[in-house]
This record gives sequence, structure tokens and C-alpha cells, in this order.
Amino acid sequence: MLNTVITGTGSYIPSVRKKNSDFINQEFYAEDNTLIPQTSKIIEKFEKITGIAERRYITADLRTSDIAAIAAREAINDSNTDPEILDLIIVAHNFGDVADRSLQVDTVPSLANRVKHLLNIRNPGCIAFDTLFGCPGWLLGVMQADAFFKSGMAKTALVIGAETLSRIFDVRDRDSMIFSDGAGAVVLEYRESDSGILSSSALSHSTAEAYFLSMGKPYGPNDDNGTTYMKMKGRKVYEYALVNVPEAMKQCLEKSGVPIEELKKIIIHQANEKMDEAIVEAMYKLFGVDKPPENIMPMCIQFLGNSSVATIPTLYDLVLKGQIEKQELHPGDVVLFASVGAGMNINAVCYRI
Amino acid sequence: MLNTVITGTGSYIPSVRKKNSDFINQEFYAEDNTLIPQTSKIIEKFEKITGIAERRYITADLRTSDIAAIAAREAINDSNTDPEILDLIIVAHNFGDVADRSLQVDTVPSLANRVKHLLNIRNPGCIAFDTLFGCPGWLLGVMQADAFFKSGMAKTALVIGAETLSRIFDVRDRDSMIFSDGAGAVVLEYRESDSGILSSSALSHSTAEAYFLSMGKPYGPNDDNGTTYMKMKGRKVYEYALVNVPEAMKQCLEKSGVPIEELKKIIIHQANEKMDEAIVEAMYKLFGVDKPPENIMPMCIQFLGNSSVATIPTLYDLVLKGQIEKQELHPGDVVLFASVGAGMNINAVCYRI
Repeated sequence: MLNTVITGTGSYIPSVRKKNSDFINQEFYAEDNTLIPQTSKIIEKFEKITGIAERRYITADLRTSDIAAIAAREAINDSNTDPEILDLIIVAHNFGDVADRSLQVDTVPSLANRVKHLLNIRNPGCIAFDTLFGCPGWLLGVMQADAFFKSGMAKTALVIGAETLSRIFDVRDRDSMIFSDGAGAVVLEYRESDSGILSSSALSHSTAEAYFLSMGKPYGPNDDNGTTYMKMKGRKVYEYALVNVPEAMKQCLEKSGVPIEELKKIIIHQANEKMDEAIVEAMYKLFGVDKPPENIMPMCIQFLGNSSVATIPTLYDLVLKGQIEKQELHPGDVVLFASVGAGMNINAVCYRI
Repeated sequence: MLNTVITGTGSYIPSVRKKNSDFINQEFYAEDNTLIPQTSKIIEKFEKITGIAERRYITADLRTSDIAAIAAREAINDSNTDPEILDLIIVAHNFGDVADRSLQVDTVPSLANRVKHLLNIRNPGCIAFDTLFGCPGWLLGVMQADAFFKSGMAKTALVIGAETLSRIFDVRDRDSMIFSDGAGAVVLEYRESDSGILSSSALSHSTAEAYFLSMGKPYGPNDDNGTTYMKMKGRKVYEYALVNVPEAMKQCLEKSGVPIEELKKIIIHQANEKMDEAIVEAMYKLFGVDKPPENIMPMCIQFLGNSSVATIPTLYDLVLKGQIEKQELHPGDVVLFASVGAGMNINAVCYRI
């Protein structure tokens, strides 16, 4: 049967390492501009909840499209695909190319066109576009490629998730400790195979939820000069995710026809360790299973933080290449990808390796 | 046969009218920061080439997502569709929501999520995402909906093109006279019909072409404070379009199986009147026809300028509603949509009403 198969993966781990202890002298402020005392305790509590011990940032000379191209090159090499045969380049991101310290609009040309430029792909039949869908954007890009394949409009695709949140956050907001930079990519091909996408699903909740993540004023009492930064209503996101993500994952797995016992790994958006654990537990409960199997959920948030659209393709790449301790994947294994983010948007894809 | 049918159209014409004569006291500078003398002559020549006599801007209180929602509401009403049955909301744009005088990143949440919020659509199965593909973004959104339909992933879609170029251009650059604001929308449905999409095609050229349109420094000698604005290599765009767009249109029409004699209208991106005329003439020449039929190409650039992704859905809406003199469309008529823009990207869709 013709199926949408991942033939190669790649990722870029930015070179600037920022440890939690590096925030010790950072003054954090609350939304009402009041100082939050005792930074050391804040950091300790932060690590306990999110699981993040360090995160990565790109150097000042790079932009999102640059690291997208690096991850893409690795995925192309990994898949042994001639880049000139690609029909689609889809880049998922949420802020465009934000130059260091600029916070300025820079989305023209699209990041996908920039990646095509950097890869020096000449085939005009390879169309390049960007997808914005919050953190689930990369997984939506995979679903878009799948739709183009099934409709006969394309046969091969490069789908990249790349983001540089270090360019967008407010340094005096505690949430800045969560966010990081990164890029991950896959090459997809529509071909005869037993492996491939088994099912997919997506949701958007945009009534009150639309502004749980949005651009807003900085928190420092002397910082408001009209510039806006990414702001997150953390508690609301947490509560939203816990209610809606397990249900969406369950629906996707059921659509695939794969019994819960056969599920080998859950590759979930690396947003917050405790939240991800709670989501996976809740999903298993929906199937009447009290405790998720050990090691079902590989994580990289501990050393990479939350790099938005980049977390899932990066983590999948690392697991496949044996870079995550005690985590392996083999041909035939079924994986459930799932993501949640700004919008609020959710999606899930069930995939057989 | 199941087909992708446009069931309703809508558009938003911004309220601020700017005539060419309103630029008479504007000092224009060249890329090398030298003053371009004789503004009155520049304006006269400008009108002759582009066809633009006036253009529209939104008021300071509005943003791209606001006008996207207005056009969307009209399309939904026009189609008599319950918005709660929509499966997809796709917003094509290129710069996000740019607040008046900000030039700042504001793409989170996605504009599609904002539109869903403004329309108060509650159905979580209605997923909302943005597409960035230069000026051809709206037409790509239509192709994406078509792909989702054919793959079985969706049945109804709202596809919007909305842009506010007045927030992005450099007032001391002559090209600022070209650009405008606007929004257009359609509701699409996959259903049994003789009408619908007959064929589509797309191209991306991103080697040297990638930076024909991009963000760059302002031209005024005292304006460079680090802020960047949309910049266009006008001659290169013109030459590129003239070589590549006619061929792409020809390929799309041939794919549809409709003979050139049966083509009723060409709805082309409103970039530049002379360029659009030259493209259409060149396309007819490729079919061995010396002169395009009279009135084959409706235009609204004269009074609306170039509003990027918004021009095609706006123009189509105006023609269908009898708002363009000497232009009519009737059930059964075949229309060729075509666009070209930043990336550089091109696409075309052949459609039977």
C-alpha cells in the first residue's frame, strides 16, 4: 500500500549552553511589574516542575532559517535523497527570522524559500512554504505533506520545524527559563510500504484559549518601550493541555487501529516534564490502564528546553540515532507523536516505523 | 463527481483612500539614499506603468486579522454556511498582525486562530493555520484545502488572504505607492458538482530570486535606525514574472483539458497593470494566439493598488458581485487564477464556476 514514510531525520542542537545556575543573578518580575524575590528558590522549583536543567541558544550570527537548513541537510543526507527530487519544502515556525535583538518582522521571503535558497535546490517544481500553527506546526506540516501526497499533488517532502525563542522572550519573565532554540527535519516520501502514517488528527480551541500565548508587554518595571515579547499564561496552558491532549491522542490511536498495548513510544512536544507525564498518564487512564509502561516517553527537555516546533523532530531524530539513554526504536514499532501549543492547537500522528 | 467548489466569497475594502496626488509632497529617495527629483513626474510615470490611481489603507485601530475576519464573515454569509461546520480556516499573509507604527513580530497566535476567535467558532474540529508563500499565498491556501479534501482529511474550508502593506513599506521609497491593504475570502466545499477546481500548479524559484523581495534598510538618508522595511527589486521581479508566469499558466490550463478558446476570465494577482497585460499576452502567444480576447482580464489595481495575497479573492468577489465594469461571470464559465510574488513563488488554479 502507498504510504507516507519518513525516510530520513536531522536536527540542529544550538551551541550556546545556558544552565539553570546561569540565571541566578537574573531579576525576575511578575506580570504586575513587582519583583519576585529569591531567584535561587524559583530556579529550584522551576527545575522540579519542568524538568529543564539547561537549554540551548543559537549564536548572534544565525537566524531560524539558517538552523532550519542545517537540520534539513542532515535529514536529506540521512535519507539518501537527491534534494532536486523534493516536491515540497514546508517550514513550521511561529516568529519568522528574528535577527538578534531586533524583534522585528522578517518573514519575506518565507523561511521555506530561504531554506531552498540555502540548500541551493534549483528544481522549480519544489514548492516552498511556511506553516504557522503554534508548537504543533511541525506535526501539521507532516499532515499537510500527507494530504498533498494522498491527493496526488506531491510525492516527496522536506518538513522542518525551527524556532529561536531566545529572540522573542522577555529576560525578566520567569518563563524565559523554559524556552530555547532548535531545528528538526524529516524527509517524507509516498511509497509502497508497511511503515508510514497510520492516522492523524488535529484540534483548535480559539475562544478564550486564543490568547493563552501571545505577544505582550515586558514585566520589568522600566522595560516598557512599546516592544512586545512572547507571553504565556502558564497555568491556563497546563490546565487546557491536561483536559484536551489525552483525548486527542486517544482518538488518533483509535483511528489507527493499533491497540494501546502495541504502542512503543510517545514522542510528545517537550513543553514541561510534569505536564507531559500527566498527559501520558491521563491518556493511558482513558484506555483503562493505570500506569503507562516504563520508558514509553523519551524526553530531551532536560538538556534542550522547549524549542517549540523543533522539539518533536529533534527528539525523534535523537532517539532514532541512539542519543537518548534507555530509548530505542526499531522497524515495525508504532510511535504516537503529539503536540499542543499557541492557538490553542493540538495534533497527533500515529506512525509505524 | 466530488469536486472542490467555491460556495461563497467576501472581501474588505479598507476605508482610507489615498490618491496618487496625495504623494505630491512626499520626498522619494533611491536605494543609494539620493533624492529622486520631480515627484510629479514620478507619479505620472508610475500611474502609466502600474495603472494605480489610488489605493486603500486600514485605519490605525485595525490589524490584518481584523480585516481577515470581516472578509471571512461576508464569505460565510454569501455561502449560507454554518461556520460551525468548517473543518479548516487557512489565512494566507506574509507579515502577521503588524500594529500601526510597530513593525514588530506578531504572529502568535496564528492569524487563523485569531479569525476563528473573532468569528467565535467553537467547533474544536475546525483547525486554524497560516500559510506564508508570498503573494501567491491565498491561492496556495486554496490548493491546500483541495489537498485536504482529496485526502479525506476535511470537507469544508474558509481560505482568506489578508495583508496590511501600509504597515510594512518605507514611505520614502517610490514602491510604497504600489502597496495597499486588503482582505478577501472564500468558503470551499468538497461536494458532488460539475463546477470546481479543474487543475492547479505551483513553482518556486529561490536561487538568485529568493531575495527579489525582502526586508531592507529605509532609503531616506536620515532614516536608518535599524528598522527594516519591505523592499522590492522591481525590474528583476518584472523580468522574472514575464518569463515564468505565462508558462505556469499554460501548464495549468493544459492540465485542466480546457481549450484556450473556452477560457472566460483570467483573475491574476494585481501587481502592476502593464506587467499583468504583458503576462497574459505572452500566455496567449504560447497557445499561438496573437491577441488576448477583450475583457479577458478584470482589474481592480486602479483603485485598490497591490494588496498582496488579498488581490485575487477580492477581485474575484467584486467581479462575481457585478462591481467591476464590463465584467461578468456565469455558472459554467472557466476562470484561470494566477499569482506571482516573493520567494519567488508562482501558482495557478483553473476553476469552473
